[in-house]
Order: sequence, then C-alpha cells, then structure tokens
Amino acid sequence: MTRPDSFLPPPDPRLDLVIERDLDVRPSLIWAAWTMPAHLQHWFCPRPYVISDCEIDLRPGGIFRFVIRSPEGHDMPHINCYLDIVPERRIVWTNALLPGYRPVRPNFLPHTAAFSIEPSGAGTHYTARAIHKDEAGRQKHDEMGFYEGWGTCIDQLAEYVKKQSQ
Amino acid sequence: MTRPDSFLPPPDPRLDLVIERDLDVRPSLIWAAWTMPAHLQHWFCPRPYVISDCEIDLRPGGIFRFVIRSPEGHDMPHINCYLDIVPERRIVWTNALLPGYRPVRPNFLPHTAAFSIEPSGAGTHYTARAIHKDEAGRQKHDEMGFYEGWGTCIDQLAEYVKKQSQ
Repeated sequence: MTRPDSFLPPPDPRLDLVIERDLDVRPSLIWAAWTMPAHLQHWFCPRPYVISDCEIDLRPGGIFRFVIRSPEGHDMPHINCYLDIVPERRIVWTNALLPGYRPVRPNFLPHTAAFSIEPSGAGTHYTARAIHKDEAGRQKHDEMGFYEGWGTCIDQLAEYVKKQSQ
Repeated sequence: MTRPDSFLPPPDPRLDLVIERDLDVRPSLIWAAWTMPAHLQHWFCPRPYVISDCEIDLRPGGIFRFVIRSPEGHDMPHINCYLDIVPERRIVWTNALLPGYRPVRPNFLPHTAAFSIEPSGAGTHYTARAIHKDEAGRQKHDEMGFYEGWGTCIDQLAEYVKKQSQ
C-alpha cells in the first residue's frame, strides 16, 4: 500500500502570512536551489546577512538546520524538522518540532513554513506561507518584516537561479 | 518523482518511553483497529474511561481528534496532527501541531506518538513510543502511568481484534 498524500488546507488570513510570485525560471531549478546547501546558502537570507552553515536531510522527520550570520559576525542557529516533501512541488518544515518529530521547548516565534512551486508557462508560480499558532504570532512575524524579508529572499532566489542557468 | 521515506531515529532512552509486544493477531487487523473510529473507540483508552468521539483524517497533516470520557461523564478532548502514515506499518502523530501542521499553544504534556507494527510469525510485533521534548516530560508521562495506561490499551486492542476476527 502506498502512503497517502498530505493535507495542507488553504491559508487562514487571520493566522497565516502568504507571498505569491511568478518567476521566470523552471521549477526544477528552484527545487535544486531549495534542497542543496551549496545552492541554498546563496539566497536563503536577506543580504548582508549570510547563511554560514546549512544541513539538509530531505525527508519527513529529517533535519533542516541553518545558521544565519549577521554582518557583525553574530551567528543565529535554527533547527527545524521537515514535515512534507513532494519533489519539485512542495516543501514544508516547522520549528515546533526537532528532527525525528520531537516536540521542542517553545521558541520565540513558533511557525511552520510551506513552500509550493508549480509550472506556469516557461516559469514557476511560487507560493511561500508562514503558519502561526495565533493572531499574535502572525502579527509579530508581520511586524518583524515578513513581507520584506521573505520577499527579498525570493528576489535573491530568482536572481541566483538565473545566473546559474546561464 | 516519488516522496522520500520518512526519518524516525531510534528511541532516546533519556527522552522517550517505549513499549514492545508480540501479539497473536495479524498486522492488517491491528491496522484497521488503529485507523477506523468505529474500531478505535473500543480499545483506545483504559476502561472504565471510554472514547466518546473520534475523527480520523488518515494522512500527513490530517486531524486525529478524540474525546476521552471519564466514568463521571467528564469529557477530555484531544486534537492531534498526523505526521507519518505508512499503511500497515507505521502511524505517527503529535499534539505539538494542529491539523495542517499549525503550531499549537504549549499543552500539558507535549509529545509525539509513534506506533509501528510488523509481521512476526502468524502475529504482529507491536511497538509504541512516546517522544518528549525533555527529560522532565518523559518523567511526568512515566509518573502519570504511561506503562500501565498504554499497556492496558494494547491488551484491549489485542482482545478486541481477536473477538472481531472470530
């Protein structure tokens, strides 16, 4: 018997933040940029912050760990658990669980991140979503600059992938 | 491309509680008892407590909701999110996320539950595991009577399935 497909309901506007974009690069290239540390470090946080380390075990329950380094050299480690992986379609991970699905001590901003890509003409329709536990969580993330931060990352992603494919 | 298999590391004895049993019923019958509310309500909590309601959306991200009713008629609702479903092999769910992978406000005893079954002779090798965020969580669950409670449920499960298959 095969595994069932996963369930990801439509965004709840009270609780979720969403960005959608049409990018003129193919889904397979976006996928590679998302799933290989050597690519991901080039775009995954807004410059001048950089990804100084990254570990990817691309399967449900697997680790997604990255370290954001500030321009002053301050390292901020993040450990997440992948929840859902549909090759060239969807990645979902959360900071509410450690790898192996272990619950974690409450952190500053518990959220689950869901990214989906789908072919759109010669390019890709890209959707990024942050899923929060309550309205206060959504608002805090919004005020922290969600749209600017995640939006900048999408710009950097598209720019990086285009450069790679030239 | 197919989805990758999930990652569930070996138990950590500092943080996890585990029960293993050999049951003389086939895995397919155990699986049915685990995944259909009409069956599950007959064994899923230690009598004289009963399951007064149950909702199962058997896919990653889907809801696993049940209500435990005390002999005095007090209802205790539980909402969980399925994380991993491998038919006739494995079920994993957590109370650290709501359905759709939404982080939840910290609850009394955050844990992930993992159940695996495998054919063993004419019967089933059954493993139940509770995964906690820290040693205090494991200890609290232990002191609440994990081994007796979950052990009684396994007895009830085996008894129920045998009666059904006669």
